[in-house]
Amino acid sequence: MSLDTAIAKPHDRLREILSDDLEQVNRLIRDRMASRHAPRIPEVTAHLVEAGGKRIRPILTLASARLCGYAGDDHVKLAATVEFIHTATLLHDDVVDESGQRRGRPTANLLWDNKSSVLVGDYLFARAFQLMVEPGNLRVLSILSNAAATIAEGEVLQLTAATNIETTEATYLQVIRGKTAALFEAACEVGGMIARRDEAVVRALAIYGDGLGMAFQMADDLLDWGGVSGEADAIGKNIGDDFRERKLTLPVIRAIAAADATERAFWARTIGKGQQGDGDLGEALRLLRAHDTLAQTRDAANAHIASAKAALAALPDHPIREMLADLADYVVERLN
Amino acid sequence: MSLDTAIAKPHDRLREILSDDLEQVNRLIRDRMASRHAPRIPEVTAHLVEAGGKRIRPILTLASARLCGYAGDDHVKLAATVEFIHTATLLHDDVVDESGQRRGRPTANLLWDNKSSVLVGDYLFARAFQLMVEPGNLRVLSILSNAAATIAEGEVLQLTAATNIETTEATYLQVIRGKTAALFEAACEVGGMIARRDEAVVRALAIYGDGLGMAFQMADDLLDWGGVSGEADAIGKNIGDDFRERKLTLPVIRAIAAADATERAFWARTIGKGQQGDGDLGEALRLLRAHDTLAQTRDAANAHIASAKAALAALPDHPIREMLADLADYVVERLN
Repeated sequence: MSLDTAIAKPHDRLREILSDDLEQVNRLIRDRMASRHAPRIPEVTAHLVEAGGKRIRPILTLASARLCGYAGDDHVKLAATVEFIHTATLLHDDVVDESGQRRGRPTANLLWDNKSSVLVGDYLFARAFQLMVEPGNLRVLSILSNAAATIAEGEVLQLTAATNIETTEATYLQVIRGKTAALFEAACEVGGMIARRDEAVVRALAIYGDGLGMAFQMADDLLDWGGVSGEADAIGKNIGDDFRERKLTLPVIRAIAAADATERAFWARTIGKGQQGDGDLGEALRLLRAHDTLAQTRDAANAHIASAKAALAALPDHPIREMLADLADYVVERLN
Repeated sequence: MSLDTAIAKPHDRLREILSDDLEQVNRLIRDRMASRHAPRIPEVTAHLVEAGGKRIRPILTLASARLCGYAGDDHVKLAATVEFIHTATLLHDDVVDESGQRRGRPTANLLWDNKSSVLVGDYLFARAFQLMVEPGNLRVLSILSNAAATIAEGEVLQLTAATNIETTEATYLQVIRGKTAALFEAACEVGGMIARRDEAVVRALAIYGDGLGMAFQMADDLLDWGGVSGEADAIGKNIGDDFRERKLTLPVIRAIAAADATERAFWARTIGKGQQGDGDLGEALRLLRAHDTLAQTRDAANAHIASAKAALAALPDHPIREMLADLADYVVERLN
């Protein structure tokens, strides 16, 4: 989660101003993870939920609600809801990706088994739906259940698009909307909704969350190639994990779109057929640089951040609004 | 799904009286399975949803609503919801059980892969939650989200209890409540709830669904041992699948509770350690007969059916009420 680290500074300021709320969210998460009947559940989830996640999604919900002057406590339930949804998708992703590590620790599917990851993920989804029902707000339920469907659809799309070098940019955008932006958007939107703000404010929060999420994922995909320079970045992330896993992200999709016949054959062999040898990662990077697609990906992320920040103008003047603007800047700052 | 076949007769009468509603449910299921972005989804689900399921759960919702005089069309959405939840759990179960067959056909995890089964299952869960939100009834949402949590908790509990010969009868009851009874109960309950019937009627429907579901699962577990006679039954179900998979069901749990030291060692070896050889299945059956636990399991199923039928007295006099009584009888008829 390199990006989670990357945005630590404005994130820490938000965490501080929201510390009482966050403490309640953490307590609620612990309470609702517990299972009277199945002790395996808190074992698996504690491992993941306590494992140093930055709580970026619940912070977005809390920040949106407070920014809109919300004074109740349903925002705590909704913040815990989005974290549960996120955690459930992580558990299922690790099964799908056959991952061995997450946040620098062994994944649940390695420590226990795939079965536990699947079923405990289902439990967290169900707990999320129980929590989101409690505030009794049907519009909130509609937003969050739609987001859950977009997330799941994006995951399936990513699975079927993987290793397919015909994957279009439109498909990529749909995948990252599901993978990241849909939940960021919903997390922000429901915060304004429970504060009963007018449609323009709620809509602005949704646009902010969407733009932040799209840029966040594009930045993550770019950093997997070492950033615009195409060199290993300071935080020690391995370059080329996505290449080795044959995932098609924006830098590669654009390079394939611009490829000549020889280059296309290279991508067909390395990503399409998965035949990778010494020097292929270097050649891939050379092609991305030749077609300037690393810089183009940064520019695309910047455009989403610009749209996110522009939306903030419709929101009430509040210290949290400035922090959200800084958070947006921070996502792309390291790419420039 | 031997029991699905076993209850075909009263089930077919319900299917006939509810045929218009069921046609709408089937249409809605097809519509909501579709994905503009991910064609893999209808491929995987069509294979399962169209594969000859008896639609017992949606029929319970439709029947409960009609029996209560409901004249709207939200019952169609809720019936599709429970079928989606059921189908999602089947997809995930097949991954967890590493199954190769369901309803006489290869499972989705064999035809595609575990990844597709996990993610398409998630998609169906999300679609279920979208559908259940649409009627805008918060009590219904509370019932269905609680059922989803009970289902998931039961699945995890089953996973951790498997192969553990210390498993208690209380744990078994919790597992089958999650595995079967919780969704049967919710399917019935929400039918009465949208008809705005008073609490006594809704409660009676819940008790009926719970009793039917508990008995349904106990009967299934008993038939896995060949029924009370302990012989292969007419519908060709293999005897001893649960024994080979080291699943602890009521006949075995009771036999272990009554075991002497030698018998206990037998169970510890065959179920606890999974060391099974020629003659072990026969010896297991001999022990179940010796302690009379096959007949005891039938009696337990009968008790749940009696409670289900008794609850029907609180419901309006209606042809569907008689069919529900017959359906309850049918679940245990073949066990006697």
